[in-house]
Amino acid sequence: MQRRHPGWGVRATLFAAASTVAIAAFSTSLTAVANEVGTKAVTWDDIVNDEATTNDVVSWGMGVRNHRYSALDQINTENIAQMKPAWSFSFGDEKQRGQETQALVHDGVIYVTASYSRAFALDAKTGKRLWSYTHRLPDDIRPCCDVVNRGGALYGDKFYMGTLDAGIVALDRKTGKVVWFEKFEDHTAGYTMTGAPNIIQDQKTGKTLLIHGSSGDEFGVVGRLYARDPDTGKEIWMLPLVEGHKRRLNGEEVGTVGDAAAPSWPNNEDGTKVEAWHQGGGAPWQSATYDVKTNTIVIGTGNPAPWNHHYRSGPNGDWKPYDSLFTSGQVYVEPSTGEPVGFFSHTPNDAWDYSGNNPITLFDMEKDGQTIRAGAHADRNGFFYVTDIDKLAARDGKIHKQEGTAIGIYPFVRDITWATDWDIATGRPNEVEGQRPPAPAAGEDKGAVIQVTPPFLGGTNWMPMAYSQDTKLFYIPANDWTEDYWTENVTYKKGAAYLGQGFRIKRLFDTHIGALRAVDPTNGKIVWEHLEEMPLWAGTLVTKGGFVLTGTSDGYVKAFDAKDGKELWKFQTGSGVVSQPITWELDGKQYIGLASGYGGAVPLWGGDMADMTKQVSQGGSFWVFEVPQRTAAND
Amino acid sequence: MQRRHPGWGVRATLFAAASTVAIAAFSTSLTAVANEVGTKAVTWDDIVNDEATTNDVVSWGMGVRNHRYSALDQINTENIAQMKPAWSFSFGDEKQRGQETQALVHDGVIYVTASYSRAFALDAKTGKRLWSYTHRLPDDIRPCCDVVNRGGALYGDKFYMGTLDAGIVALDRKTGKVVWFEKFEDHTAGYTMTGAPNIIQDQKTGKTLLIHGSSGDEFGVVGRLYARDPDTGKEIWMLPLVEGHKRRLNGEEVGTVGDAAAPSWPNNEDGTKVEAWHQGGGAPWQSATYDVKTNTIVIGTGNPAPWNHHYRSGPNGDWKPYDSLFTSGQVYVEPSTGEPVGFFSHTPNDAWDYSGNNPITLFDMEKDGQTIRAGAHADRNGFFYVTDIDKLAARDGKIHKQEGTAIGIYPFVRDITWATDWDIATGRPNEVEGQRPPAPAAGEDKGAVIQVTPPFLGGTNWMPMAYSQDTKLFYIPANDWTEDYWTENVTYKKGAAYLGQGFRIKRLFDTHIGALRAVDPTNGKIVWEHLEEMPLWAGTLVTKGGFVLTGTSDGYVKAFDAKDGKELWKFQTGSGVVSQPITWELDGKQYIGLASGYGGAVPLWGGDMADMTKQVSQGGSFWVFEVPQRTAAND
Repeated sequence: MQRRHPGWGVRATLFAAASTVAIAAFSTSLTAVANEVGTKAVTWDDIVNDEATTNDVVSWGMGVRNHRYSALDQINTENIAQMKPAWSFSFGDEKQRGQETQALVHDGVIYVTASYSRAFALDAKTGKRLWSYTHRLPDDIRPCCDVVNRGGALYGDKFYMGTLDAGIVALDRKTGKVVWFEKFEDHTAGYTMTGAPNIIQDQKTGKTLLIHGSSGDEFGVVGRLYARDPDTGKEIWMLPLVEGHKRRLNGEEVGTVGDAAAPSWPNNEDGTKVEAWHQGGGAPWQSATYDVKTNTIVIGTGNPAPWNHHYRSGPNGDWKPYDSLFTSGQVYVEPSTGEPVGFFSHTPNDAWDYSGNNPITLFDMEKDGQTIRAGAHADRNGFFYVTDIDKLAARDGKIHKQEGTAIGIYPFVRDITWATDWDIATGRPNEVEGQRPPAPAAGEDKGAVIQVTPPFLGGTNWMPMAYSQDTKLFYIPANDWTEDYWTENVTYKKGAAYLGQGFRIKRLFDTHIGALRAVDPTNGKIVWEHLEEMPLWAGTLVTKGGFVLTGTSDGYVKAFDAKDGKELWKFQTGSGVVSQPITWELDGKQYIGLASGYGGAVPLWGGDMADMTKQVSQGGSFWVFEVPQRTAAND
Repeated sequence: MQRRHPGWGVRATLFAAASTVAIAAFSTSLTAVANEVGTKAVTWDDIVNDEATTNDVVSWGMGVRNHRYSALDQINTENIAQMKPAWSFSFGDEKQRGQETQALVHDGVIYVTASYSRAFALDAKTGKRLWSYTHRLPDDIRPCCDVVNRGGALYGDKFYMGTLDAGIVALDRKTGKVVWFEKFEDHTAGYTMTGAPNIIQDQKTGKTLLIHGSSGDEFGVVGRLYARDPDTGKEIWMLPLVEGHKRRLNGEEVGTVGDAAAPSWPNNEDGTKVEAWHQGGGAPWQSATYDVKTNTIVIGTGNPAPWNHHYRSGPNGDWKPYDSLFTSGQVYVEPSTGEPVGFFSHTPNDAWDYSGNNPITLFDMEKDGQTIRAGAHADRNGFFYVTDIDKLAARDGKIHKQEGTAIGIYPFVRDITWATDWDIATGRPNEVEGQRPPAPAAGEDKGAVIQVTPPFLGGTNWMPMAYSQDTKLFYIPANDWTEDYWTENVTYKKGAAYLGQGFRIKRLFDTHIGALRAVDPTNGKIVWEHLEEMPLWAGTLVTKGGFVLTGTSDGYVKAFDAKDGKELWKFQTGSGVVSQPITWELDGKQYIGLASGYGGAVPLWGGDMADMTKQVSQGGSFWVFEVPQRTAAND
């Protein structure tokens, strides 16, 4: 029995009308994405000019000098209070953990990496996923400090990222398909890769190089810096960061790093090198900066292995002759050969796992009427370093070191205990006696407990500072905390933690842990600071609009007046923010983007602070902010 | 050698000043949360008046009649274009999957459940987590359609939620600590709980009851509705939803449900009931509505088990005498005893897994100058039912059924194939011959493949419609799709799928799958519709502000003009939205809140549509939206 449904007359008409409109829009959107965004190749000019151009972000650090500064001022101190999310994108899967990435933006597409070696290309306007890549990770990877990834690199038609199984992968920028994958070392030994690779162009040969390091110092592997052909992934050179180890160029060993006798590492009585030298650490696990003028790669190196410095000292505990080169410092490298030409140790014979990895920001410092081409570096050891690029990068056949290369070294956290200050002329710290954790007494497994500030998680850590070309200040995401520290006996075993040290990170002040500090590089003065209850673990961004922007472990993105630190705006993203903000312009409108998702080293290693951050939800999403158009117009 | 650090003078001053301000604010916030929000107990008055009050949402459905309507109009068709997120909260863990929840709000606190039987209390102003609860789930739970949870209930000092291991838990509303937990059945048999419990007050006894159902029809368990003492969790009564099974009251069996001979289920030749009756399904896995006037609980019941109707028909395939009571329909229940007083089958002897669970929305329908107390229900079978509450809830010792209780039954999706329409007087469908999947031929495992519309995932599914007290229209989140369908032989085995049917869901139109439809309950007319490329799987909200709001599988929250369906606003949340929006007022400001996080049945069972939704990221977060103050003021 067929009857007429009363609704169908109206409905049939509506179907016809509404369908046409709605579906046409959807298809257009898909077509637009395929044909109109993400088509332009990324050139070296795009990268080397990234600092000055506002329509894209094609390098880690927003420029090869890592200023993390933008000349955009559409969003500014006047209107940022009205900033709101434009859209958000969930990284998805049942995978969260720390999102420490910095996104890149080019030709209407956002390229962003995520925890567990994932990458996504998103339509910058809508957040629609264009492609995603999930690296298939073996079960036995050994990331010390969470399954993070700190960003990718763009060049030509490819997007590059490191993988936690000690590899680097090149993806087709338009499809996300793998073009090449190079596994650079054995992940079961502890090698991984968390840092963002860089593209640089060797000014001598005109060759474009993909530069990347390794991670794994906590497992006693020898840190390595690589240059590859970005087209094929083929290794061009490899620089190990432990003095006396062999370099590689075009597949062949090309002599040793520094002095072949490696005098910065002790010998056994028979003249053979002790265990630590074989396993010496120094991993360049962050990203390089690049000085075009001197054609030099500058990169921070990781802690020596093991942490326990007695294994890297003389038989009577005499550590002074042994600097554990080239660990815990900044190394200057010739791009055509991978040879080190300069090295400034941030912590000679590092006894505290301070490492030296935070990127060296290159800038022109006006001081006493002069312009000095300087490098700035905020170290985990609590000191802010201003060094002379031209001296450290000079090519005269020797490796330039501490002496005469420091311009200023200033504390940026409170109550540093391990050193009082630095001798600028010699470039060496004035250490405080008793601050090197003593070796266990004979027959004991554990040395006496001492208190050290900053703790090994650092006065700052990996999270990059920003430099304002307007205020001429550096904005350092710092932490004030301390630790109980003691040595332990240790023997190297492949794939096992190789620390020789125990620790418990503790609160130093009732008032705060995190402190965003504005530092004047000409005199080390802290111009302003903003305190946070929880540790700070996110990078910073500063703009011509006059604000500094960063994230907090309790989920906020916050903006401050770059001049005086006044809080101008905040937004709660729902998970801790430990990533690196960027800003760009699309179709005449400024956007700010960053990932939210708590994790990283603090909840794993942070002792009392790990307990504190248990209240923070995990997450995994990318956020884009805007000042809504009508609001701005009405203001 | 001690030297003075140049920065310390300035810094020390700043430390003192900034610390005081920043930390005072933090402590106040913590104190405020502890002392000033979430202190008021939830009363029955709060719940029964929930529909009319705007400062909280204390019931699933935003009122015991499930209108999902708010009298708030601060956000309206004029200013909703400016709506933006106020904050977001990540559910965290490495757990995502479908977020189908509806949040509750009371006294400044948002109570929200999440996938994997989790619950969170959030400060409604800031999104700060006050507490969270993660139910420890065994590995062998058997949720058919994702690890979802659709919401909790509030009463007194407790928050209640179902758990996937067939339990219900009462948490202290202030701390999230477990007050009681009742496991109501064996989860290894397939029992689970995904729906939101309800609080009702039995008008006869004055007793407050916690009402909840079970899930598990796909595993051939007998569906059960429970009433409990909300203070202790103790069962008061239990109503099985298969005719002839035993009810329980105060711990004792109290006779059978319906006719003891269960004539709606076939017998074996020896007079014993066939297997299907023992395993008959009918789970009330969604939430009840409550009619205060007649003191009646109204709830939808699930599909009969197995799906294959030949197991529930006579020996010659004669299905007509066997309605498989009380499955796939709406049941009316006396609160003091748990006795059914009325039942309207949406699909007698359901051969298609249409189920009948979507909540019955109770409303006053003006028609021909009369006010009819009606129930409205949009079914997976594609029909929209308007039934007479007073007739179905009448207390005269018998169970009122189809005849004379239907007011109007109208299709709300296109091209329904299984029935042409309904005979309103008898309350029975006019079925189309050949649409019941034929049994396998003798010796075959599989029957002939037929095409059926709507498919078993339904013209709508669990996602609740909204009813506007202004436009007098229902807003149904519908889907137009179809399926290939065939029977398979099946034997009951505890804990194994008990379907007896195979399927492949397919596209019906090139233009769309999802269709949000505004339906006039007086005549079934579809006043407007909005089409979506992907399936719709989120609930709806309508307000006096004149808009309907829902979420889409591709991540948007969208608002439409309630009168004509014009799209007014959208925001991309980054994961598919399959939850239930709510709105409330806090300190004079209106907010809208809902969860984002894709999952549910479509990506698991959706055939071609499951493939389509592979591009959707998983997620897990709660979003709160506002019209920013300055923007609204400037408008």
